[in-house]
Parts: sequence; structure tokens; C-alpha cells
Amino acid sequence: MSSGKSGRSRLTPKGAATRARIVDAAAELIFQQGVARTTIEEVRDSAHVSNSQLYHYFEDKPALVRAVIERQTERAIGTQEEFDLSSLSGLREWRDFVVDHARDTDGRGGCPVGSLGAALAETEPEARALVAASFARWETSIMAGLLRMHELGGLAPEADPRQLALATLAALEGGLLLAQVQRDPEPLAAALDAMLTLITTLSSTTSAPFDH
Amino acid sequence: MSSGKSGRSRLTPKGAATRARIVDAAAELIFQQGVARTTIEEVRDSAHVSNSQLYHYFEDKPALVRAVIERQTERAIGTQEEFDLSSLSGLREWRDFVVDHARDTDGRGGCPVGSLGAALAETEPEARALVAASFARWETSIMAGLLRMHELGGLAPEADPRQLALATLAALEGGLLLAQVQRDPEPLAAALDAMLTLITTLSSTTSAPFDH
Repeated sequence: MSSGKSGRSRLTPKGAATRARIVDAAAELIFQQGVARTTIEEVRDSAHVSNSQLYHYFEDKPALVRAVIERQTERAIGTQEEFDLSSLSGLREWRDFVVDHARDTDGRGGCPVGSLGAALAETEPEARALVAASFARWETSIMAGLLRMHELGGLAPEADPRQLALATLAALEGGLLLAQVQRDPEPLAAALDAMLTLITTLSSTTSAPFDH
Repeated sequence: MSSGKSGRSRLTPKGAATRARIVDAAAELIFQQGVARTTIEEVRDSAHVSNSQLYHYFEDKPALVRAVIERQTERAIGTQEEFDLSSLSGLREWRDFVVDHARDTDGRGGCPVGSLGAALAETEPEARALVAASFARWETSIMAGLLRMHELGGLAPEADPRQLALATLAALEGGLLLAQVQRDPEPLAAALDAMLTLITTLSSTTSAPFDH
């Protein structure tokens, strides 16, 4: 299905480095100006490769875009997994990191994964399915922290870690979109703070029960 | 600044109807296939107008896109204002309406306003500013309900209606994006349910105080 993917397993170290340079260049251009505006010629020039090198790794723009989706997903989930989401303090550190980053960048580009989803959902079914899978992986990663918190007794028994993880991912995505459009990190802060307040409420229920 | 806007005040009823037909056709095409893919020729054919009619109302595609942003904003806020967000039951009715709509449409198109924001934020500064103003108006509209709830004593004194409104709008936008990409209303339901649970928690604090 994906020539870029099947080709990758047979790459030499040098080939892998060239391929990665192309994907990095494409990811950066797409993040800055959107997928619709980014041409394969711009990617070629930005990555300092020839046409034949580029087409050796990616048969067309959709194949390159799929590689960009995979790369941005790895990066987003990797960054998030540097934080321990099984504790309130870890959740707060993650919140601060995300909000500080949006402040430093004026929200430019929005979410590298979500922006691709919004741009491709109605016209590229294969890319849409890939971003859907990215979101599912991301949700699972957030849920792992909340499940652990639940198991450790840090969340009330009635709390549903899966629903909370899904709502947290939605708060992140919506907050990043509003921060991007308004060039202001405040909506992102408000969205994540609402989830932190909710999770704190659900954790304090356990630590201070009123029923005995 | 906006020729479409200044021209509108001088329109005859017939001219206003033609202009509205063009904007409706453009809004529908952009919602279905995105703003990048939609050409002015498609809009012309879909609205059954001539080139000269179309360019009489809109000097170029950006002017037409600005009119679409205004129209989608009016429609989104108008729909939301059919619900009374100053009560928990009204909030729940709104939540059910939005989630049912996403279920009926498989999430297709996402948010008509947010999708335009995501598509235009990095390349069209004027359109970005217009969508930013749309989100600010939408937030104010949600906040009006929550402020009223606060004044009526339905929200705890420490609750901040503005922050809750911003978080609710972010939950809506993120939930709609996830529902669009995953073709599943569940993330939207989880996002809005999280906000409803938080608001319910903040309202039950008032109705059942533990401090005396």
C-alpha cells in the first residue's frame, strides 16, 4: 500500500538518512504553510535532494504526506510521553510545557497532527485513516497514565480513564486550534485547566470521602 | 477593506438574494471539500451565476472566503443560541443536539468555522483575524449563559464563567475535529461530557455546601 513504508525496511543507513531529511523538510514546510500549499518541488529544494532521489523514496505527494503524518505522530506522542500523566503534578508539568510552547510560538501551526487531519479529512481517505489511527494511539498513551492513576487509587472508582483521556485529547486539540487562530495561548490554558480541575475533583473524592 | 461587505449595504433585494446564493454555494463546497480545493469556477457553476455576476459581488476568492466565514459564524452562533446555556438542562440539550448531529453526519466537515480557521491561519492573515473574531463572539455567546447561571447562584462563587466558556468552546472544537477525523461522535461526546461534569460539580458545590 505505502511504497515509502515498504521501501524503508530495505534502506541503507545513508538511504535512511536521506529519506529522513526529505520527511523532515516536508514536515517543516507543511507545518509552516499547510499541506495544500506545499509542493513536492519545494520539499526537494528544501531537503537538497534531486527529483530522482525524492521519487526513489516517495512515489507521489500523498506518499510523502503519509510519511509526514507518521513522523509528526511519533514526535507528538514522544514529547507527551516524557511526562508522567499518572500523577497530578505530572499532568500539571505537561500542561505547563504545552501552554509555554504555544506562548513561545504564538500558537503558529497549531497541532502538527491535528492540522493535517483537518486539512486532509474530506479529500484524502487514506491520510484521514492514518491521522485517525494517530489520534487513537495518542489517546491510548494519555489513557495509560490515567489508568495507572486509577489503579493506584488516585482517581475515584467511578472515574472513566478512557473517557477522560479522550476528553483531554479533545481539549488539547481544540485549545491548540483556538491558540493558533487567535495567536494567544489562553484558550489552550483554559481547556487543559478545565480537564485538570475535573481530574483533581475526581482524585480528591477518593482522598477525602464523605460517606463514612 | 472588504468590497463584498461595503457593497452589501447598497444591494437591492434581488442583488442581496444573488449574493446570498453565491455565499451559500461557496460555503457548501468549502464545507464538503475544503477551501484549498474549491475554485471560484465551481462556486459560479454551483450558484448558477455568470462570471460577471460573481465578480460584481466578490472581487476575488479571499473576499468570497471572508463572506463564507461570516455566514458560517452567524449560522453556528445562531444554532447555539437556540439553547439556554444558563441551566444544566439547557447545556445537556445543546450537548445532545451537537453530538446527534455529528453522529448523523459521521462527523464530516468538522466545525464549519474551525475548519476554515485551520485551513487559513498560516497563509491568510485577514481570514485568520476574521475567524479569531468569530471564535471571540462564540465564546461571548457561551459565556452569556454561564454568567447568567453564575448570577442566579447556579455556579459556585469561585467558578470563572469566562474560563469555562473558553474551555467549552475548545472542547467543542477539539471534539468536532476528532469526530471528523475518526468518523465517530464519541470523542465529541467525551469532550462535552467532561465540561458538563465539571460545570455540574461547580454547581452542586453551591447547592450542597459542606462548610456549615
